[in-house]
Amino acid sequence: QTRFKVAVLAGDGIGPEVMAEAHKVLNAVEARFGLTFERTDALVGGAAIDAVGQPLPPQTLSICQQSDAILFGSVGGPKWTGLAPDQQPERGSLLPLRKTFDLFCNLRPGQIYPAFADLSPLHPRVSSQGMDVLCVRELTGGIYFGEKGRGENSAFDTQTYSTAEISRIARVAFEAAQKRSHKVTSIDKANVLQTSILWREVVTEVAKDFPDVALEHMYIDNAAMQLIRSPQQFDVLLCDNLFGDILSDELAAIAGSMGLLPSASLNGSGFGLYEPAGGSAPDIAGQGIANPIAQILSAALMLRYSFGLEEAAKAIEQAVQQCLQQGIVTRDIQPDSSYGTADVGSAIANAI
Amino acid sequence: QTRFKVAVLAGDGIGPEVMAEAHKVLNAVEARFGLTFERTDALVGGAAIDAVGQPLPPQTLSICQQSDAILFGSVGGPKWTGLAPDQQPERGSLLPLRKTFDLFCNLRPGQIYPAFADLSPLHPRVSSQGMDVLCVRELTGGIYFGEKGRGENSAFDTQTYSTAEISRIARVAFEAAQKRSHKVTSIDKANVLQTSILWREVVTEVAKDFPDVALEHMYIDNAAMQLIRSPQQFDVLLCDNLFGDILSDELAAIAGSMGLLPSASLNGSGFGLYEPAGGSAPDIAGQGIANPIAQILSAALMLRYSFGLEEAAKAIEQAVQQCLQQGIVTRDIQPDSSYGTADVGSAIANAI
Ligand SMILES: CC(C)[C@H](C(=O)O)[C@@H](O)C(=O)O
Ligand SMILES: CC(C)[C@H](C(=O)O)[C@@H](O)C(=O)O
Repeated sequence: QTRFKVAVLAGDGIGPEVMAEAHKVLNAVEARFGLTFERTDALVGGAAIDAVGQPLPPQTLSICQQSDAILFGSVGGPKWTGLAPDQQPERGSLLPLRKTFDLFCNLRPGQIYPAFADLSPLHPRVSSQGMDVLCVRELTGGIYFGEKGRGENSAFDTQTYSTAEISRIARVAFEAAQKRSHKVTSIDKANVLQTSILWREVVTEVAKDFPDVALEHMYIDNAAMQLIRSPQQFDVLLCDNLFGDILSDELAAIAGSMGLLPSASLNGSGFGLYEPAGGSAPDIAGQGIANPIAQILSAALMLRYSFGLEEAAKAIEQAVQQCLQQGIVTRDIQPDSSYGTADVGSAIANAI
Repeated sequence: QTRFKVAVLAGDGIGPEVMAEAHKVLNAVEARFGLTFERTDALVGGAAIDAVGQPLPPQTLSICQQSDAILFGSVGGPKWTGLAPDQQPERGSLLPLRKTFDLFCNLRPGQIYPAFADLSPLHPRVSSQGMDVLCVRELTGGIYFGEKGRGENSAFDTQTYSTAEISRIARVAFEAAQKRSHKVTSIDKANVLQTSILWREVVTEVAKDFPDVALEHMYIDNAAMQLIRSPQQFDVLLCDNLFGDILSDELAAIAGSMGLLPSASLNGSGFGLYEPAGGSAPDIAGQGIANPIAQILSAALMLRYSFGLEEAAKAIEQAVQQCLQQGIVTRDIQPDSSYGTADVGSAIANAI
């Protein structure tokens, strides 16, 4: 297969700017590998609220449905913070997309690159040891989607997990660990939560199918601590929806280079949503200084996971490494840099 | 009042060693201020499991009930990790104690002392700016104590919060902020959880009674990130039970000096449980090298919050500062130190 359909949801803030650079890179990949990425733009987030009154319009959903993957920019900004929680750009677009497409598996890598260790807010005695962690987060269950509501003077949320939900995400984590450093740290709060006790049981059971992967269980509070103290002890973090939300952001903060971190949200049949880990950064939007690398690496993940184009994905990743090595980076990476968003995007596209 | 009853639950690991030093310091306070702390030892945690088969024996509970406060050491260790979750030393003692005495309010300070900034795992460019955060955690509600259970191939936990539960802990946070830097950051996940939406509403309402305190709301995932990036932005963190569990440990990791951090768990009538933030540290137990300061500072908090002995509490805190300044510290604080647990305890007692 050489033809793929991509729904492009650029969104708000820096979304459209960094998406423009991902397009350049995808064009370069088309040319080099003889591929066609048929791209269709669709409204999402605040831009969609402004245009048609809702963060995820039916038309956008139907474009996604007709595509092989979603390339997502970022959504949200000060303009829409006054809206009711379920109508806000982030929540109102991401949660229904995850549920509609059963994107149960969220992958978020976090690295400290030795050459850029100083970007990390950790002490050099820690960051100099490097870090290479993959957070595997369950994304369609748990307290996010359980029964919830309001009483007269109270409110409640329910967290439920089934054996099937836990084992399918656990398998992803173990398979990922097999291609990495063969260690899974499963995060729970089994000293308090029944769902965590089940989580621990199911993960322990799944681990039996992966004798070459070491499994460790860790309480969420301890993990929040260990990630700061010695992040190099981790390889794959396996988390439920809520704990994964927290730890993947903590991981990104520790890496220190939000502008470099992509993410992938996948279902069981190869469909996925790919987005930078960082937000819409309204404070720097429109200035041409946003780092496009996380968006470009998200496109690389799309090629790998949804299109099976490993070689093309690697080509993008190598081009990114090359630019990093040559110092062609935006100022979030090198404060005195004079390169802008478009410079970095073009350099990466040219390197392909 | 000059006479106070203290239930002393030393527990496991380094618990008994550091508790011995707290006794020295309490003796010094008795002598200097003409007070009497009538102390009764009671079994708890692993030690209690070994002796009588349960982590919180009825006899211990009744000693606590007859006291004005509980001075708690630490519980747990490798010996008991195989037990069922609800019989383990930590969970099996702390959760019932919290519930029995309605200890709804947990206070956990986290500081980076300029003189010891290098203890922090954060980069000097961050840690040199210092940090002084108080985490105020709701401790008897939320997902810890909601309905929970197992289905055939599933499990569930319920998080509930009432207006009353939220407003009483919010008041504590605002009152604390009035004595500090007049800022409360309330942590929630209001873009996903109904309990968080209620939390935000109630906290906003309570804030109206504290016009001299600035209120800010922050999502838990963002807070986990911001705490690492720029901890100096925070004064008081107001958290529900689960988020407070995670953030207070993250805060302790950032401070880097677990051996210096006390905690207080209080109810509405002055009764409280006081314990070091660190664990039982079985790896160094019995070697006489554990840092007793967190236990000693926990005793100071007991004097302040449960006994209203502000002057005596300050005397302990000043004595601790003096020892820190003189370098009379264990090796977790200064790796080349030759002082042991007893040296530090005696020095603090002598300084009173
Ligand atoms: C916007 C929000 C609902 C979402 C989440 O909590 O999952 C976001 O924080 C994320 O991690 O993608
Ligand atoms: C032992 C455990 C139940 C407890 C908690 O989660 O509250 C502990 O982590 C704490 O923070 O005191």
